[in-house]
Amino acid sequence: MALLVEKTTSGREYKVKDMSQADFGRLEIELAEVEMPGLMACRTEFGPSQPFKGAKITGSLHMTIQTAVLIETLTALGAEVRWCSCNIFSTQDHAAAAIARDSAAVFAWKGETLQEYWWCTERALDWGPGGGPDLIVDDGGDATLLIHEGVKAEEEYAKDGTVPDPTSTDNVEFQLVLGIIKESLKTDPTKHTKMKERLVGVSEETTTGVKRLTRCKLMELCFSQLPNVNDSVTKSKFDNLYGCRHSLPDGLMRATDVMIAGKVAVVAGYGDVGKGCAMSLKQAGARVIVTEIDPICALQALMEGLQVLTLEDVVADADIFVTTTGNKDIIMVDHMRKMKNNAIVCNIGHFDNEIDMLGLETFPGVKRITIKPQTDRWVFPDTNSGIIVLAEGRLMNLGCATGHPSVVMSCSFTNQVIAQLELWNEKSSGKYEKKVYVLPKHLDEKVAALHLGKLGAKLTKLSKDQADYINVPVEGPYKPVHYRY
Amino acid sequence: MALLVEKTTSGREYKVKDMSQADFGRLEIELAEVEMPGLMACRTEFGPSQPFKGAKITGSLHMTIQTAVLIETLTALGAEVRWCSCNIFSTQDHAAAAIARDSAAVFAWKGETLQEYWWCTERALDWGPGGGPDLIVDDGGDATLLIHEGVKAEEEYAKDGTVPDPTSTDNVEFQLVLGIIKESLKTDPTKHTKMKERLVGVSEETTTGVKRLTRCKLMELCFSQLPNVNDSVTKSKFDNLYGCRHSLPDGLMRATDVMIAGKVAVVAGYGDVGKGCAMSLKQAGARVIVTEIDPICALQALMEGLQVLTLEDVVADADIFVTTTGNKDIIMVDHMRKMKNNAIVCNIGHFDNEIDMLGLETFPGVKRITIKPQTDRWVFPDTNSGIIVLAEGRLMNLGCATGHPSVVMSCSFTNQVIAQLELWNEKSSGKYEKKVYVLPKHLDEKVAALHLGKLGAKLTKLSKDQADYINVPVEGPYKPVHYRY
Amino acid sequence: MALLVEKTTSGREYKVKDMSQADFGRLEIELAEVEMPGLMACRTEFGPSQPFKGAKITGSLHMTIQTAVLIETLTALGAEVRWCSCNIFSTQDHAAAAIARDSAAVFAWKGETLQEYWWCTERALDWGPGGGPDLIVDDGGDATLLIHEGVKAEEEYAKDGTVPDPTSTDNVEFQLVLGIIKESLKTDPTKHTKMKERLVGVSEETTTGVKRLTRCKLMELCFSQLPNVNDSVTKSKFDNLYGCRHSLPDGLMRATDVMIAGKVAVVAGYGDVGKGCAMSLKQAGARVIVTEIDPICALQALMEGLQVLTLEDVVADADIFVTTTGNKDIIMVDHMRKMKNNAIVCNIGHFDNEIDMLGLETFPGVKRITIKPQTDRWVFPDTNSGIIVLAEGRLMNLGCATGHPSVVMSCSFTNQVIAQLELWNEKSSGKYEKKVYVLPKHLDEKVAALHLGKLGAKLTKLSKDQADYINVPVEGPYKPVHYRY
Amino acid sequence: MALLVEKTTSGREYKVKDMSQADFGRLEIELAEVEMPGLMACRTEFGPSQPFKGAKITGSLHMTIQTAVLIETLTALGAEVRWCSCNIFSTQDHAAAAIARDSAAVFAWKGETLQEYWWCTERALDWGPGGGPDLIVDDGGDATLLIHEGVKAEEEYAKDGTVPDPTSTDNVEFQLVLGIIKESLKTDPTKHTKMKERLVGVSEETTTGVKRLTRCKLMELCFSQLPNVNDSVTKSKFDNLYGCRHSLPDGLMRATDVMIAGKVAVVAGYGDVGKGCAMSLKQAGARVIVTEIDPICALQALMEGLQVLTLEDVVADADIFVTTTGNKDIIMVDHMRKMKNNAIVCNIGHFDNEIDMLGLETFPGVKRITIKPQTDRWVFPDTNSGIIVLAEGRLMNLGCATGHPSVVMSCSFTNQVIAQLELWNEKSSGKYEKKVYVLPKHLDEKVAALHLGKLGAKLTKLSKDQADYINVPVEGPYKPVHYRY
Repeated sequence: MALLVEKTTSGREYKVKDMSQADFGRLEIELAEVEMPGLMACRTEFGPSQPFKGAKITGSLHMTIQTAVLIETLTALGAEVRWCSCNIFSTQDHAAAAIARDSAAVFAWKGETLQEYWWCTERALDWGPGGGPDLIVDDGGDATLLIHEGVKAEEEYAKDGTVPDPTSTDNVEFQLVLGIIKESLKTDPTKHTKMKERLVGVSEETTTGVKRLTRCKLMELCFSQLPNVNDSVTKSKFDNLYGCRHSLPDGLMRATDVMIAGKVAVVAGYGDVGKGCAMSLKQAGARVIVTEIDPICALQALMEGLQVLTLEDVVADADIFVTTTGNKDIIMVDHMRKMKNNAIVCNIGHFDNEIDMLGLETFPGVKRITIKPQTDRWVFPDTNSGIIVLAEGRLMNLGCATGHPSVVMSCSFTNQVIAQLELWNEKSSGKYEKKVYVLPKHLDEKVAALHLGKLGAKLTKLSKDQADYINVPVEGPYKPVHYRY
Repeated sequence: MALLVEKTTSGREYKVKDMSQADFGRLEIELAEVEMPGLMACRTEFGPSQPFKGAKITGSLHMTIQTAVLIETLTALGAEVRWCSCNIFSTQDHAAAAIARDSAAVFAWKGETLQEYWWCTERALDWGPGGGPDLIVDDGGDATLLIHEGVKAEEEYAKDGTVPDPTSTDNVEFQLVLGIIKESLKTDPTKHTKMKERLVGVSEETTTGVKRLTRCKLMELCFSQLPNVNDSVTKSKFDNLYGCRHSLPDGLMRATDVMIAGKVAVVAGYGDVGKGCAMSLKQAGARVIVTEIDPICALQALMEGLQVLTLEDVVADADIFVTTTGNKDIIMVDHMRKMKNNAIVCNIGHFDNEIDMLGLETFPGVKRITIKPQTDRWVFPDTNSGIIVLAEGRLMNLGCATGHPSVVMSCSFTNQVIAQLELWNEKSSGKYEKKVYVLPKHLDEKVAALHLGKLGAKLTKLSKDQADYINVPVEGPYKPVHYRY
Repeated sequence: MALLVEKTTSGREYKVKDMSQADFGRLEIELAEVEMPGLMACRTEFGPSQPFKGAKITGSLHMTIQTAVLIETLTALGAEVRWCSCNIFSTQDHAAAAIARDSAAVFAWKGETLQEYWWCTERALDWGPGGGPDLIVDDGGDATLLIHEGVKAEEEYAKDGTVPDPTSTDNVEFQLVLGIIKESLKTDPTKHTKMKERLVGVSEETTTGVKRLTRCKLMELCFSQLPNVNDSVTKSKFDNLYGCRHSLPDGLMRATDVMIAGKVAVVAGYGDVGKGCAMSLKQAGARVIVTEIDPICALQALMEGLQVLTLEDVVADADIFVTTTGNKDIIMVDHMRKMKNNAIVCNIGHFDNEIDMLGLETFPGVKRITIKPQTDRWVFPDTNSGIIVLAEGRLMNLGCATGHPSVVMSCSFTNQVIAQLELWNEKSSGKYEKKVYVLPKHLDEKVAALHLGKLGAKLTKLSKDQADYINVPVEGPYKPVHYRY
Repeated sequence: MALLVEKTTSGREYKVKDMSQADFGRLEIELAEVEMPGLMACRTEFGPSQPFKGAKITGSLHMTIQTAVLIETLTALGAEVRWCSCNIFSTQDHAAAAIARDSAAVFAWKGETLQEYWWCTERALDWGPGGGPDLIVDDGGDATLLIHEGVKAEEEYAKDGTVPDPTSTDNVEFQLVLGIIKESLKTDPTKHTKMKERLVGVSEETTTGVKRLTRCKLMELCFSQLPNVNDSVTKSKFDNLYGCRHSLPDGLMRATDVMIAGKVAVVAGYGDVGKGCAMSLKQAGARVIVTEIDPICALQALMEGLQVLTLEDVVADADIFVTTTGNKDIIMVDHMRKMKNNAIVCNIGHFDNEIDMLGLETFPGVKRITIKPQTDRWVFPDTNSGIIVLAEGRLMNLGCATGHPSVVMSCSFTNQVIAQLELWNEKSSGKYEKKVYVLPKHLDEKVAALHLGKLGAKLTKLSKDQADYINVPVEGPYKPVHYRY
């Protein structure tokens, strides 16, 4: 695709696959709104006061129908928004088209190349000469990373004229990041530094992104605050657990039409995502084996009747392999070679380095047969036996299906809206320092409460006497911070 | 689509949507073969002796990838095959293309009109002047019905020149059937009678088809034998139960992307199909309510923790409605008007008369908004509230997803192959009279056994002493005929 | 215990453990009545007309609280009743005491010796000089067997004076049977023949009993009719399946207090009983492995995510072993020697020959440590490792817990009452020949219907039009005879 | 029972029900040891160095078989131990007898009066004139409370001679506490103050106890440290969740023999205990309705397919009511009057004030019929309808069954041992201040790891590279403190 920014008649920038899908996107957005009561309640509650008036928000988060409802909630609250996807396969083109036409600047399509991906990220951050966005909604940390690396390079360049060298790294993706920054140094050697200065804060969606922020010490370099949406209960225990319980079998079915019942499935990692995956596979009739490093999670798996073994123990016997660890190098090409013919290998953890795609692609004589987009059969030359890899090792629920369903994303995204509001409202108060915060529990409970009515639930009310007895306010929050749910 | 028969270079007739999808179809057929060990074992065991040499087989059964493996098993055993689908939405176009190019005459595409549907059925039965097929693989009984009605009309025509009058019925589909027969009387007034005389037998796939055969007393009019595949345990307890457990959520997800967890779902009917549906909805986190007429099935539902109520009790509270009864007039337009906004209404029973589509379509002022093919929102004029109807009330797992997975269809279709073989081999022996038969239990057990190895199971062997003690042969069959599994 | 018949003040014979428990028994009987709506409905419907007036009924069936409600339903309908248990451990002494005091002649206590057991059976059949009972309620066929063997011996004795020789068999229990008959020949050489002549019919409770009746061709020798309660759906699919799902974990917990979660459990046999057991173990968090001889049942297990292996494959790895086969020689002493220390071994099939208790008891140097009644640890001399055997290999749910709960027994026993009524009402009509019958389906549906109200269910009613469409009467029965539920 | 301390031949004090049950207790203790690998591993690892040499430990915790293994682990590590139960019904008399005979001073029996209960607590704290224990293992906080109230009274007494007035409170139990303290002031007006001064720390078992400690600000008054075992993951997520999943149905079955399938069950509270209860009831085939005050927990219940309503909505329809809230006044007598006949009412939360037993007992004309110990039917005079209350409203799993199974208590109690060790080892280091601590995560992970081998699990090992990538040590701990599992 030619990488040229297009413009709507109203002058809004965009780059999407097919603008004619906008009507279809709009219909599905309207359906999703009914399933996303938390976001709709935010529009009702906050819309009139336009709290985001003047705020420029960049999002780097799967450009799906659900995300469209998030974006239009942000704009309904007064924000100006630019958006890209955080995964090359996760965009739903009709969602992107509807948003591009009606609401915000979008740069995203299903099946981007890595180069296109980073071009889109750059566009979403490009608010013109005045610097970057006021706020970032990030998922996995790529938008934040680009600014971070930009600032680092600009500091070195200012010191001694050093220019980043893309050939200094083996990581293909990082080569592209360095290339972008190298290019920007030519036109504006303080571009990212100005972005950093303008930026009020980031709200991050995933465990992986939070780990990355902490690991890279991104926050020390940049930004005043970093609320962490991932660790809200209504995110981690809903999106990760129940979302994956829904979308893992969805992705498997759409990609392969394979019967899950009667199969042996290996789930690598038994965190929230792994728990959701194992639950749905077990309930669909698979025999599930878990691999774990953490003895507590391993014991939880045992209590649910799941076997806990190492990948080596079961690599030759299982039919389905799912990685959920958030770590890297989980399934290597040597594992894949030992698998049964047509074993399915997929990843539902954030990044695509859980599966050794590089090892697979470069294995001598290996043959790739694309059954359909995001479903490839890789055949090893010696055995003539093949494995089926979904979404090229990337998030299979977004690559092969449509990601998490609306109602679960409504929880996650209501957290995002509330986090962004908190950041914006407190931008001058000094309430948040340069570190990773979790949203306060009363906001977490509020997100949950906004979803109960739609699902027909009726809460019991504490009496004052009972509230005193357990030492909580009548109106909550009801649990200590460390409570595990 | 212009209704013209096309021909391959080798001269085989066909009519499919897009021949260029044949390669894609072939790839998926190859994947499915690995998941269909029963059919592949039939090829290995029977292929060399070519038992179907000289047999002409017509099939009227969803033209999917799995059916493609069935068709190619029949041809691998020596048969000549012509095929149509038994549902206007259930054809997978790439499967049809691959078969048309490589193996058999196919007349089927996704999204036929009713007129096109019956044209396809007629083509599949059209073996030229010498009469019709030797054997029929039927699903729902439409191919059988056409011959049956043809014979009836030809008898009356022979008696007194009476010609069927399409305007004599309100049933749109039956009008088309009568029209076809009326037309054929003009060119060949004994066409269907000749078909009937040639026909050795029919093997029928579904409960609905079996009921229809019995109800219409079809067998008294025609054919020497009617083995009934549906009542094999390896069909009714696998395809109906486990197949639907898999494909109901698959269809719901693909059509609506809606979260099943937290929803209230009503399953009308708690037979094998209803049990599979209720199980998968419950396991996905829905609260399931069952409607039943049979007190035994109702008690079974209660024992699984499901509520048993009438549709009227819950019509305003539920989010998802699924009909599985095999009966008609289950969800009427008056029910639909009382439903919540965006309630999902779908059918997984064989025929589309479980849901009152006619009542809906003709409701004054109702508005149909097609979200995407097979997913329509119907908005009532007074309330401005809408419901979502899947696959126009037809089989939603085939209309909105890809039907049952390969391994479960391997059980069903291995029964079909064995039934067809039994019919063909015993065609002159008088073993089967004009009635509905169930396959002998040792063949049912054989079908099961053919699938165990692929799933890693190891059977225990009876000792002679143990076999004597429970009074069964060492090699089976192991259960009395009435055993319920 | 001294084997002397005692008498109540009203002159009714009995022999129970402790008459002072009658009040406790009565309280629990009253609780059970609330849970047994089917039996209570029989009292309401049939009580006034006293249909059993003049009928003498002998029962050989676990003398529990639930059976007490059955007995008092029979007496409420006018019958005179004598009862014994069909298992040496299954009597609940408070139930026996209450019945003995208030309603019927009872000969049963928990922990009978085999000799006591057969003495009790003899007493229950002893209706004085006029011959035996008019009707038998049998469970496992022991009462029937005694008459059958008696008749056989009396025929041979009449022919040539042959007297049965107890030493002619290794089977300890059969030695006792022959001894009893030998003794009766001395006092009345036509005792059992007279019994046979008086007997109208038997209704049999279990699969095992039915098999035994068929196997021994008992029915050819004796009796005019043998309705078979076991094969009613409301028996086989409720008592066997849901009853065992409830009572297996109950027995395990009461006997051993062991955590089921995290354990590996082997279920031998995947019939209705095995399905119930596997389901409850899986749901309690065990990893369940099934052993099976029947490929269809094996495939069903696989579809539920259970592993299917042979006992040899897993004998050293599992923690819990349950036999449910109805066959013999399932777990032999050589298996037990290979088990883990404190592996639990138990049987929930009808007879105690599924586990090789003889092999265990006679293993050289084996040591038995009784933890508490019905819970023994057997230590092998060489390894000093032990296994825990429940209820001495007999029905563990009755030996270690209280058997199936009332509501499920209400289904089974309502079948018994209806079967006995059918036998008695048709005693002169010739409706039933000398073979095993299943109750007609409309009675089966009636049993189910009697239980729905209590559980809050509301049935849907067929319209006449719908009933015609599926070709059933509006009021049922709704399914063909072969339907599998 | 006469409240006189008895002595073993070796001079150890005790008061138990029946010393002749010691052998039976010892057999069950030996069985439990095999199921409690964590405690046995502690004996192996720490036994040789006798770390508790010189430590006097008082325990107030259900005197069961599992607790016996805990006590003997403490003594195996060198401690001297005195023990009482923390619930009047939870003692297993054979466990108490075995410990009293062989290992420690025990004051506990099943079915204590409240007066006896507090006498036992006093005895367990009575280490003679030198003050109280060095360490307390508390469960619910009663032992701690007694010291706390004692100190408070002694301070007031020292100030102005005020003596506590038992008539100043309506709470019967608190009257007894004040009575005991009043009495002790006469003989030793600094008894509890001396206890407080000697006391190194308390490890508390339950949520309720922790809340109570916090609520009463007990820790400000007394003691240097208060590690909180309840909030270890291997306690809260195992004992509370999986323990109750096991023991709730166990208690229901033993107390009532009622079928859970087909029933409507209300679970008040959806914390860890409520989750375990709801899960087991659902899996046993009940329809489960949850009452909750916390919107997050309510949303979790919905995601599992459970209905969330208020008690008022369902009080007349449900069959089983279980309180799990840790709060008070959940089911009041006015609720109970509206329930169905023979509805079962029970509590599995720590204290007996969840159910309004006082309201029930004092209801005019109410009649109590004791079916068997811990199972009472209460009949209301006007309706003649009754409800069944288990364990007099106290912990039903301990009152009606034997509490949690060994393996789950092994997790909890290994935490206790490690907490006690930590307290004792750090008694002079100042590591712990006067507040409630959670055990460090590496110890939590260690507890889990000690149980994996017994359950056949194999952990995966992180490579150094992977550990660096996710920023954790190779050997753990693997999760941030706030991780929710």
